[in-house]
Amino acid sequence: MKELFSQALKVVNLGLPSFKDALDNMRVEAVQVEFKPRVAVSPAARATLRDHAAQVAKANEVAIARLLAGKPALVGMGRAIDLIPGMKQNVLLHAGPPITWERMCGPMRGAVMGALVYEGMAPTPEAAERLAASSEFEFHPCHEHQTVGPMAGLVSASMPVFIIENREYGNRAYTTQNEGLGKVLRYGAYGPEVIERLRWMADTLYPALQSAIAKLGSIDLKTIIAQALHMGDEVHNRNRAATSLLYRALAPAVIEVTDKKTAGEVLSFINGNDHFFLNLSMAACKAALDAARGVKGSSLVVAMARNGTDFGVQLSGTGDAWFIGPSPVPDALFFKGFTKADANPDIGDSAITETGGLGGFAIAASPAIVQFVGGSVEDAVNTTLQMYEITLAESSAYQIPGLDFRGTPTGIDVIKVIESQILPFIDTGVAHRLPGVGQVGAGVLAAPLEPFRKAYEGLAMTL
Amino acid sequence: MKELFSQALKVVNLGLPSFKDALDNMRVEAVQVEFKPRVAVSPAARATLRDHAAQVAKANEVAIARLLAGKPALVGMGRAIDLIPGMKQNVLLHAGPPITWERMCGPMRGAVMGALVYEGMAPTPEAAERLAASSEFEFHPCHEHQTVGPMAGLVSASMPVFIIENREYGNRAYTTQNEGLGKVLRYGAYGPEVIERLRWMADTLYPALQSAIAKLGSIDLKTIIAQALHMGDEVHNRNRAATSLLYRALAPAVIEVTDKKTAGEVLSFINGNDHFFLNLSMAACKAALDAARGVKGSSLVVAMARNGTDFGVQLSGTGDAWFIGPSPVPDALFFKGFTKADANPDIGDSAITETGGLGGFAIAASPAIVQFVGGSVEDAVNTTLQMYEITLAESSAYQIPGLDFRGTPTGIDVIKVIESQILPFIDTGVAHRLPGVGQVGAGVLAAPLEPFRKAYEGLAMTL
Repeated sequence: MKELFSQALKVVNLGLPSFKDALDNMRVEAVQVEFKPRVAVSPAARATLRDHAAQVAKANEVAIARLLAGKPALVGMGRAIDLIPGMKQNVLLHAGPPITWERMCGPMRGAVMGALVYEGMAPTPEAAERLAASSEFEFHPCHEHQTVGPMAGLVSASMPVFIIENREYGNRAYTTQNEGLGKVLRYGAYGPEVIERLRWMADTLYPALQSAIAKLGSIDLKTIIAQALHMGDEVHNRNRAATSLLYRALAPAVIEVTDKKTAGEVLSFINGNDHFFLNLSMAACKAALDAARGVKGSSLVVAMARNGTDFGVQLSGTGDAWFIGPSPVPDALFFKGFTKADANPDIGDSAITETGGLGGFAIAASPAIVQFVGGSVEDAVNTTLQMYEITLAESSAYQIPGLDFRGTPTGIDVIKVIESQILPFIDTGVAHRLPGVGQVGAGVLAAPLEPFRKAYEGLAMTL
Repeated sequence: MKELFSQALKVVNLGLPSFKDALDNMRVEAVQVEFKPRVAVSPAARATLRDHAAQVAKANEVAIARLLAGKPALVGMGRAIDLIPGMKQNVLLHAGPPITWERMCGPMRGAVMGALVYEGMAPTPEAAERLAASSEFEFHPCHEHQTVGPMAGLVSASMPVFIIENREYGNRAYTTQNEGLGKVLRYGAYGPEVIERLRWMADTLYPALQSAIAKLGSIDLKTIIAQALHMGDEVHNRNRAATSLLYRALAPAVIEVTDKKTAGEVLSFINGNDHFFLNLSMAACKAALDAARGVKGSSLVVAMARNGTDFGVQLSGTGDAWFIGPSPVPDALFFKGFTKADANPDIGDSAITETGGLGGFAIAASPAIVQFVGGSVEDAVNTTLQMYEITLAESSAYQIPGLDFRGTPTGIDVIKVIESQILPFIDTGVAHRLPGVGQVGAGVLAAPLEPFRKAYEGLAMTL
């Protein structure tokens, strides 16, 4: 075989790299040329966006400036029903774009069942399942109520929520308290230990934290996130540093506002959960991104969210419209005893961190995360570098020390996504596909193309 | 000038890179060849060490295995006089190799004066200065009393100290509580606020931490350091993550063992000082390295320590001997209002972290530190890579995520230092050269050659 090519044959390979690998093995000189067929979008949409390029660029300047200027701070807590606009007793908020009970994936159904038991609306998970399937409850996306929730993202009326205020623009975002890993509601578990933990979080954790935050006035989340990125977090799947810094800020206040026993329990709970900060990093991004909504002509992505069935995208320039496609299954490191066959498709509002220039987009700041989500440190660095290709700016606050303090790639531009064919990178937790089980691993994925193609065409329709 | 070289002159430059820089500026083609004259050591020593290479290698295997197997844990607290072997009322421990009052640098004199006022031995700093110059007090190196102290490293009889036990070998190390940055005793300040803070640390901080540690039983420092390296610390000049993790471990116990007001004060003090963990990382390294002492023939460095006048080195194979040379002034980022002219030569036992494979040796794990000590992230990575050239092993516990979780370069081999002419890299705080002022910056330096040359020759004498 080698002799066949011995006449100084040189090869230019387009497309599949495996062909070049084979030539390399035979020591045949070959160069690889990246070739991806252009994304098939409507020619009319492409023409419209090209013709309005100057208008879109101007709109994007406005939108990205608003995103970068955001100053999210934790300013208080309360009950969902008392705070979240449009929240009602018979409303359940969930992650991702809108979905009906019939199309809900297993872990989201499990979380709905658990939430109904927790609210005292159903005596058993089975009764809760029947109730959920009836028309007594409305399911709304968190995102449509200034709220974000990780994984299933369930928020029911009586749940305590954090209030995050964007100090620059005055808008607010809400999110629940993080339960920890494993068998927890947001991963679709609903057993007695799940409900008991939620009750303790409402009866003990919430009043202590509410009083502590009131005592402190507010906690600057932008500063905590910026510091955490210097400490190896990307604040989606790694929140150990941010949780530590939040804990340091809260502890003296917790001691002041409650009795010794409660203070000890509260601090031990947070200390036992390195993901405690996740919900706050999500709501910080939500508060920052919401201020960038509604700029006519802007191709800035203001939400990426998954309900475990669909993957939805919203743009600044397309109002409340969701652009949707099937949600893919992440590549993951699975906990012992689980495989990819157990994994539910991607789920949760947590991709709001990537939308805000953190999470997978900032993964180069978090080399240690590859032990949790897979891949190599080199992959992580290259991934962040690639995300600069599809973003409008570099963060002025969130830096990657290992890239000489370069700001994180911030503000996904749907036009750049389509033209470059580089899809947003997300690192994420993975839920079991059946209700009642919980988390089975953590991993990574590229966002699906479909919602971005539709969003691109949807934006063209507004121009 | 350019014309002079226009006849296609090509230059090979040996040695000083500045000559090549000049040629580069004139666009003259030149290549730089690294050339360092071989270190001038006694030919007899070189011959002896060459002849005994197998014996030295075998001794080093024993010594490095002991160092790597060390399991430092924080197990308690007490008063220096009650715990530290050989401690007496009229003994003051200090950083670095032995030194007399006459040869002491400004910041160490300032710390001595402050310690005597703190102990109630002198009513004023001036009286303390006269007392120190008399023969009433003995000055001993911390290192000779199983103790380490940052900067001046002053330990007086009544000061509270942490007990760090090497769980693998049973030996113990001691260190004081860290005071914070700025005007503090260890940087040579001795004003009323310094003494007042030390008294609060003895009367309030110490009893609370002593009881909290007793409550917890022990705190595994090896695990905290390993995690902190995944969080951007090198645990010499950056201890934000390690301090956070220690704080998380201590807080619930502090609440339990003391009243609310004290608990709040104690936690706020630690929260206000990201360097709080430094003394513990030093004592963890001291406890691990002390177990590797006394292996005949071993060229392993078991201590690098500076008293602000001299830089001292000890080897496993040379017993209690100190090998000494003048201490250099670090290159530093200076606090506002200070310059290199204000800087004291390098001072402190904190280079025990580098000796233990941390600090400057692990600086690639800590890209964010360059904002505090200077240099670029690339420099930091290259520095760690260079330290592998002069060390005997890679740590089995302490990893650098950005280098694909490679163990830190651990166990300096004085023979490799001399043969490669690569000097140990240290990052460090910088004290004002006058007593009473305090910290003026933070920076980096290469250890001086002289002590290593002497240690190399000293080892040969034992064979």
